[in-house]
This record gives sequence, C-alpha cells and structure tokens, in this order.
Amino acid sequence: MNEHSPRYAYEDFTIGSEWPLGSKVVTAEEIIDFASQFDPQPFHLDEAAGKASVLGGLAASGWHTVSIFMRMLCDAYLLDSTSQGAPGIDYVKWVRPVLAGDILTGKTTILDRRPSKSKPSLGFVKLHHSVFNQDGLVVCELEHTAMFSLREPAT
Amino acid sequence: MNEHSPRYAYEDFTIGSEWPLGSKVVTAEEIIDFASQFDPQPFHLDEAAGKASVLGGLAASGWHTVSIFMRMLCDAYLLDSTSQGAPGIDYVKWVRPVLAGDILTGKTTILDRRPSKSKPSLGFVKLHHSVFNQDGLVVCELEHTAMFSLREPAT
Repeated sequence: MNEHSPRYAYEDFTIGSEWPLGSKVVTAEEIIDFASQFDPQPFHLDEAAGKASVLGGLAASGWHTVSIFMRMLCDAYLLDSTSQGAPGIDYVKWVRPVLAGDILTGKTTILDRRPSKSKPSLGFVKLHHSVFNQDGLVVCELEHTAMFSLREPAT
Repeated sequence: MNEHSPRYAYEDFTIGSEWPLGSKVVTAEEIIDFASQFDPQPFHLDEAAGKASVLGGLAASGWHTVSIFMRMLCDAYLLDSTSQGAPGIDYVKWVRPVLAGDILTGKTTILDRRPSKSKPSLGFVKLHHSVFNQDGLVVCELEHTAMFSLREPAT
C-alpha cells in the first residue's frame, strides 16, 4: 500500500501517548445495510422498532460500531505504520447506542509496550481506544494488544 | 420480526448446553467488500499481498469474521429468542486466518447464568462461542454476557 517506509513504528507508540482518530458520520442507510448483512435484529433495521427498544432509535449494531472504529484506526495511523496485526481483543464495551446521524470520533491511548523476546524486530503494544459521539459521550471502549515492527531493531 | 412468541427464553439457556451454529462460505468478494469499507489493510484486499503476509492468503478482517459469526448467531437462535442485547464482549481471540473459500461453522456453549436482582423479568447468560473452518480447526473464540427475558418470571 505504501511505497515509502511506514511513518509510524514500534518506537513511536510511547506509553501514555494519545492518538486522535478522525470523525465519521453514521447514516441510517449504512446502519441498515450492515445490519441486513450481519445483525438483522429489528432495532438495527427499522426506526420504529429502534424507538420502541431500549436503544431509543435506529441504532448501529455493536459490530458495526467496532468496524467503523477499525476504519478510523486504519485512516488515523495503522495503514501508515509497521503494524503486524493483532491476535485478538481484550474487551469491548458498548456504553451508549450509536444512532443514525451520530458523528463519531475517537482516541487511542498507549497503555504499555514491550519488545518481543523471541523476535528482536517486533514489539507488542497495548492500546486503549475510546469512541465518542457528537456530544462528547463515550459510545464504545475497547483494548487490544497489537504487534508492530521496530524501526531500528536492537542488534 | 416474530409475530409469535419467541421460541427461546432465558429458561432454555441451561448451563452446559450447546447450541450449534449454521455454516457460511466466505467468498473473496465478501472479504474484499468488507475490508474496503472497514479494514483496508493490503492482506484483506489482495490475494498476492495476503500470500506474502503471515496470513498466507486473502484473509478476512477479524472484524469481518466476528460479524459473520454474529449473523450465524442471529440465524441459529438469537432472532427467535427473548434477547435484550449485550453490553459488550469479554474477549475475542482470532486463532487462525479465515481465507477466501473457507466454510465456517460454530457452536455456543452456555457457561453460566443468573436472574437479574433488580429486574425479575430479566436474566444474564454467559456464552462461549467457537467458530471453526472446514477442517474443524478453531478460527475464532469469544465470550460475552447477554440479557434474555424470562418466559415465566418468578412472582
């Protein structure tokens, strides 16, 4: 994807540093399209059913919210990094509904990191992510550990 | 969605019971379509880039895999249940790559359950899910606690 060297490597993900994510408007059409494919519960498909539910309106599937978050992560820094993927997610909390028309933003905070013992070219970075709506309220929180190559492996 | 009473309620999710999920073929087109929207890393978009990566081929985004799993869950029992949603996910482990052409199946095992103390009509059910490929190998594991209404709340 990048002909040049990636901009961000393990060394850049210092503990405590914060990485802003861009914003994304979530449309009713997108909510319904995702839910039709992956999570066809009535409150993800229909405004009236959403209003009648505890979600209070046409609400994105939680899996849609984390997928949108993933795209925000890719665009903010992951695609221009030495990312080597992630073996899983420590937890996801869906704190508030994401409703049609909401504008999401987000932030990554680096919690911890350590070089790999077996592969000197690789390091593990523990990331905490918060996703906010247009009122500044958290809609989703998650944590995971990702692998990044070092720019300058110790020799 | 269901004009009739849902088939499955809290009472049916007995501890230790197993709930099979149906099967789903994952096509290259679907992998690329999902990745283009939500996770445009090269190994999710392009066969050659996938082959050159540790994933070994055009591989589904981990978020795509869990979204496919969610649809399998909906079709197997969730849409015909008294489900009241879930506040989050305890963990996700992406154990093996999901490659184009893979046929996924899965299984839910009920780990624990308890009635709500504050809402007698509601119960919490802890579910473990495994997703397998056509070779019977686990590709993904996850756990979450979901809320289900009771068929016959204690009075």
